[in-house]
Amino acid sequence: MRITGLTVADVRFPTSRALDGSDAMHRSPDYSAAYVVLATDDPELSGHGLAFTNGRGTEVCVAGVRALEPLVVGRTLEGITGDMAGFWRSLVSDDQLRWLGPEKGVMHLATAAVVNAVWDLWAKQSRLPLWQLLAHLPPEEIVAAIDFRYIEDALSPDEALDLLRAARTGREARELQIVADGYPAYTTSAGWLGYDDEKVVALVREALADGFQHVKMKVGGDLASDVRRAALIRAELGDGVLMMDANQVWNVDEAVAAMRVLGEFDPWWIEEPTSPDDVLGHARIRQAIAPIRVATGEHVQNRIVFKQLLQSEAIDVVQIDACRLGGVNEVLAVLLLARKFGVPVCPHAGGVGLCEYVQHLAVFDYLSVSCSLENRVVEWVDHLHEHFRYPAVVEHGRYRVPRDAGYSIEMLPPSLAEYAFPDGHAWTVAEAALA
Amino acid sequence: MRITGLTVADVRFPTSRALDGSDAMHRSPDYSAAYVVLATDDPELSGHGLAFTNGRGTEVCVAGVRALEPLVVGRTLEGITGDMAGFWRSLVSDDQLRWLGPEKGVMHLATAAVVNAVWDLWAKQSRLPLWQLLAHLPPEEIVAAIDFRYIEDALSPDEALDLLRAARTGREARELQIVADGYPAYTTSAGWLGYDDEKVVALVREALADGFQHVKMKVGGDLASDVRRAALIRAELGDGVLMMDANQVWNVDEAVAAMRVLGEFDPWWIEEPTSPDDVLGHARIRQAIAPIRVATGEHVQNRIVFKQLLQSEAIDVVQIDACRLGGVNEVLAVLLLARKFGVPVCPHAGGVGLCEYVQHLAVFDYLSVSCSLENRVVEWVDHLHEHFRYPAVVEHGRYRVPRDAGYSIEMLPPSLAEYAFPDGHAWTVAEAALA
Repeated sequence: MRITGLTVADVRFPTSRALDGSDAMHRSPDYSAAYVVLATDDPELSGHGLAFTNGRGTEVCVAGVRALEPLVVGRTLEGITGDMAGFWRSLVSDDQLRWLGPEKGVMHLATAAVVNAVWDLWAKQSRLPLWQLLAHLPPEEIVAAIDFRYIEDALSPDEALDLLRAARTGREARELQIVADGYPAYTTSAGWLGYDDEKVVALVREALADGFQHVKMKVGGDLASDVRRAALIRAELGDGVLMMDANQVWNVDEAVAAMRVLGEFDPWWIEEPTSPDDVLGHARIRQAIAPIRVATGEHVQNRIVFKQLLQSEAIDVVQIDACRLGGVNEVLAVLLLARKFGVPVCPHAGGVGLCEYVQHLAVFDYLSVSCSLENRVVEWVDHLHEHFRYPAVVEHGRYRVPRDAGYSIEMLPPSLAEYAFPDGHAWTVAEAALA
Repeated sequence: MRITGLTVADVRFPTSRALDGSDAMHRSPDYSAAYVVLATDDPELSGHGLAFTNGRGTEVCVAGVRALEPLVVGRTLEGITGDMAGFWRSLVSDDQLRWLGPEKGVMHLATAAVVNAVWDLWAKQSRLPLWQLLAHLPPEEIVAAIDFRYIEDALSPDEALDLLRAARTGREARELQIVADGYPAYTTSAGWLGYDDEKVVALVREALADGFQHVKMKVGGDLASDVRRAALIRAELGDGVLMMDANQVWNVDEAVAAMRVLGEFDPWWIEEPTSPDDVLGHARIRQAIAPIRVATGEHVQNRIVFKQLLQSEAIDVVQIDACRLGGVNEVLAVLLLARKFGVPVCPHAGGVGLCEYVQHLAVFDYLSVSCSLENRVVEWVDHLHEHFRYPAVVEHGRYRVPRDAGYSIEMLPPSLAEYAFPDGHAWTVAEAALA
């Protein structure tokens, strides 16, 4: 099967109108995506992938995808899957494009959209959900999908192979169990910074009623307000689990000072206490605020930074993002790094399409890498799922395991048309209202 | 004075045709730029800036600049210079665009082009070369141009102020001396990986005849070839200084192994031995290969990574890049960090426009921050200068100090027209020849 064409769309949802998704760093996001479709010479099969963005600037990511087009169109799926690591490196190491990263920022988001579309295509061709394709690949093929450049000092291909082989024990039983029970989720929908206290309390009650045992709140506004909201939420939660997320708003010392105060509310983790680039800063914060656990990852640019966060014992929770990292190939590297260092992976989700993506990654991690659910939960935000052909489903606080072939990221044509930027109806109507 | 418009051009030079600039990671670069002009309500004054790129993908950087346009057009220069750190943060922390970085990759290159154009404008309005504008600003204004977010644990505003105040002693004498003598340069023109042995030997002889005492060679191809070329160059150089540059081609352990062999040729530094993201990896390499010094920076994405390289004693040489970092404001932060940690700054140059840019930064560092030339040299590559209105000039191995107002980055209109991509004559002719 040959990839015969690539199209990329700028799709934006006007979420800022209700302050959904507001946090200390992103006060009015419009959840958006650079949305990629790979056409093939089989009219029944196409590969879909997206990079999640935040509104303005999605067009820059779209331009990044277009720059990658010549590296994928014209190739056969078999040629790509026969040398997955080589394919991945060809995208991140093009000798002219590489200057724009390397392996970070816009070009890495674009890489993720394209790489994930290839995996979606492969899974569909195999008639399997992505998690199952991954779980059924031999360990040698998983290892052959990973570019070990710059991480071999922490994880060699041989070590990775040993970890995967050891994890085969009991996989069938785990698969039956996870399909029956689902994967534990936590909710972020209750604690956005832009919501007022009444709305937060109502949403926490609703989350508990829905079966969630973990609730995350945004912090990093002003400290008095954080304390007031944390007290409200803790009172509602009782012994339930409360996580906090500062979205990078603090310096190292500010993070330590704030968490010494907010520690009173017994947070299970503090997420993104400072810059995602600051490995040594996370290590210092973690030491200073123990036993509060430190989490980060949605902005961790690549496997090289995750490697260092793990080597320096800077974090307790690895929050992979399905399209911040350069797609499935690099996620596999980070799952194995986390396994080697004994740190749980709790994927970042929300936005648009991230829940659809990461459910596959979490299930694969459980089946074939970590083999554990201990201290592991996947983020869940309950909006925008209606735009997907195979939306992620959470019931009683657990993700249902996806059963449809592919990577679950295919959006519905009416949604793509309605939210196309700037010409879709959702945007022309808003423009008309402002005029 | 108000900024009334922003234009951005995609300008590319077909340098790959002669393998100028070839190294282990970039085998056929077309030196390029996203070139920004800020128009003002004074028809005599415009601000120019560029982000250096490597050919394909320049259009992505151009899209990045366009995304920043609403954040700068309509502002007054006085409003910007009255709160320089605030202006800078408004570019890197826009709550929707930030997702695309933050502070790294394409959006940070775009930020640099815009920020440098503002400084060019300010210097022209002040009728001073940029280095002199900076040197004559009070320490308080330099500090007020820096965003200390994420570096305050290593350098506080008060410490920065103390460093700048202490450096005022003797500044007038240093200014007279550097204007008379120029700033020491080293040459990279001799050792590109794509050149054959005869060409390399001839170029080293020419460099010595031209008065250079430092020569840099590219390494990281195959080791036997590196050894052969290093022996050739060392034989020509005698006691001259030889630097080596691996352009990130090695893993940590490969870097250590290769430098144990190449150490025979007494390199003054090894540059970019591995990924620019790998702070801990650089620290390990440096420990393992001492006393060979470790240098990096042309791909170090921001002040936060430089902070960690310095905190962890991972490098001996800070190689700032004028448009990889987010323009002058962030360069100021890194110059002061380097001063605090006692590590010399040797700016990265070459490409197109980088020599024009960094001469200002090196001179300011000498006058007002480090106050020293010890172990300090600025890279020089002798091509593409003819396209600039005020080209950098190196004589007898030293940069002449620029005397014209601005940041020296203004390109000549005929060059902008000839090398515009894809419609300039240089490209339509090549297309016609291929057709």
